[in-house]
Amino acid sequence: MTVPPDDAAAPVVAFSDRVADAVERKRTQLVVGLDPRIDLLPMELRGEAVLGRPSAAAALERFCKGIVDAVAPYAVAVKPQAAFFEALGADGWAALEAVCAYASGAGLLVIADGKRGDIGSTARAYAAAFLEPRGSEPRLADALTVNPYLGSDSMDPFLAACRRHGAGVFVLVRTSNRGGRDIQDAILSDGTPVWRHVAGLVREWGEDMLGERGMSSVGAVVGATVPRAIGEARRAMPQAIILLPGVGAQGATPADVARAFTSGPASALVNASRSVIYAYRESDDDWRAAAGAEAARLAAEIWAAAGW
Amino acid sequence: MTVPPDDAAAPVVAFSDRVADAVERKRTQLVVGLDPRIDLLPMELRGEAVLGRPSAAAALERFCKGIVDAVAPYAVAVKPQAAFFEALGADGWAALEAVCAYASGAGLLVIADGKRGDIGSTARAYAAAFLEPRGSEPRLADALTVNPYLGSDSMDPFLAACRRHGAGVFVLVRTSNRGGRDIQDAILSDGTPVWRHVAGLVREWGEDMLGERGMSSVGAVVGATVPRAIGEARRAMPQAIILLPGVGAQGATPADVARAFTSGPASALVNASRSVIYAYRESDDDWRAAAGAEAARLAAEIWAAAGW
Repeated sequence: MTVPPDDAAAPVVAFSDRVADAVERKRTQLVVGLDPRIDLLPMELRGEAVLGRPSAAAALERFCKGIVDAVAPYAVAVKPQAAFFEALGADGWAALEAVCAYASGAGLLVIADGKRGDIGSTARAYAAAFLEPRGSEPRLADALTVNPYLGSDSMDPFLAACRRHGAGVFVLVRTSNRGGRDIQDAILSDGTPVWRHVAGLVREWGEDMLGERGMSSVGAVVGATVPRAIGEARRAMPQAIILLPGVGAQGATPADVARAFTSGPASALVNASRSVIYAYRESDDDWRAAAGAEAARLAAEIWAAAGW
Repeated sequence: MTVPPDDAAAPVVAFSDRVADAVERKRTQLVVGLDPRIDLLPMELRGEAVLGRPSAAAALERFCKGIVDAVAPYAVAVKPQAAFFEALGADGWAALEAVCAYASGAGLLVIADGKRGDIGSTARAYAAAFLEPRGSEPRLADALTVNPYLGSDSMDPFLAACRRHGAGVFVLVRTSNRGGRDIQDAILSDGTPVWRHVAGLVREWGEDMLGERGMSSVGAVVGATVPRAIGEARRAMPQAIILLPGVGAQGATPADVARAFTSGPASALVNASRSVIYAYRESDDDWRAAAGAEAARLAAEIWAAAGW
């Protein structure tokens, strides 16, 4: 699987190196999740949203762009959640495309949260949809969250996109929800949980995908709500960038995630979604100002907890 | 989780009963997978597709509608593969919506192959995107393929859609690809493979979702390429409709899947994609005629193998 880059004159910068550059330049490991729910939008946008799907999609787009502007100085990436856009069909997809392009323009990395996973030509189509240039247009996102249940061959097209186009993936390993136990914590015959086995696969998949800073473009999702798993995940996947959701609304704190950072300041990213984008609900500020303030606060707290 | 239907005057017909009605009326258990790849389209459509994304999406739509017309008499459902539409962005999603509506109008059930899976409000958004009425418009699909790796709470919104709206889900249990081994065949401490554990969860999730014909609206995906798993899956999930991909281009035969039908003629559905929709490539017929002929041939062969 040594696929040459499309254009040998333009060297491909590994996703993990782009993360490291951005973390060091901005001094933040915060990722802001864009989970735009119409029922939680600020009133000025919610009014628009009831006028049908095109208006609702326009409201989501305006909201997400406002959040991007507000958090851009404090976040290394945004993580748009595909589901909320898909719920508005084609109009929603157009909004997703607009938001991703806008965030890139604002100097943010874009991690599409799609949790995709399929096989053969279908997996290739997902890689094309999210991680590869689309004709004359740039790719939708810099990285994609992916579900490992279908195994190695479901990963191959994503890995090829990492190699060829400097994209990244974050593989679900141990998720932040209660139901994460049902399959991920089932105990294998060697006494380890299923998620630990998946971590081993992630390590293999990412082994020959190291950037110049020593981290791999094949990352892992490990819920910040499962602190005892974080240190073990770090040891099992020393070169994976660990994406930690669950801080904020889901109850985890920046201190819970400190153990993820032992491989370097850019070896983990911490996602907060609702607690940032809907901060205005607990504040007297304008929704943009409230999101910016909460992002700044969290970013500083995470930076301190990471200890670099 | 006893959610009343939206309108008590219009009783909700369980998805499994709608499958049973359609199977018996049409005497077929064939599902035709709509995997529209531009590079495999008939020449008359491929020309259109190179003119940019809107034209490419229009070509996919025309192709899929032509296939729907051709196979409607011989298939119980179509299974559009979301990835191939997403690869064309918002234009592709508009085409997916048009194809799903067209297939419903042609009397086919629609199983969206999205392999979605997420948690909390995100899972609810996926259920809304695929399985729930969208304002004044009907739902996109009758059923959705879902990935179980995130566990029970990731399933809840889909189960609610089954109950409230007569939708169905097909949970990935043992997939047809080589990499299916990597996680699904890992052996648990009780000596059984992970997929067998997932089958147990599917049985639980579907237990209180039985239709009048005794089958559940929570089905399972089991690859036809893994014949030894089919009988075991049938026993582990006696009331799940088993969706069997892998017949045709992936190498399995109708005889391989016979064991899935022991719970009744509508207790399993057999998917073929490329071997039907691209049948023209092995034929002198028009692409529609070739697809119709191959669908008719396969449907009869499966019906005979099912033995009802």
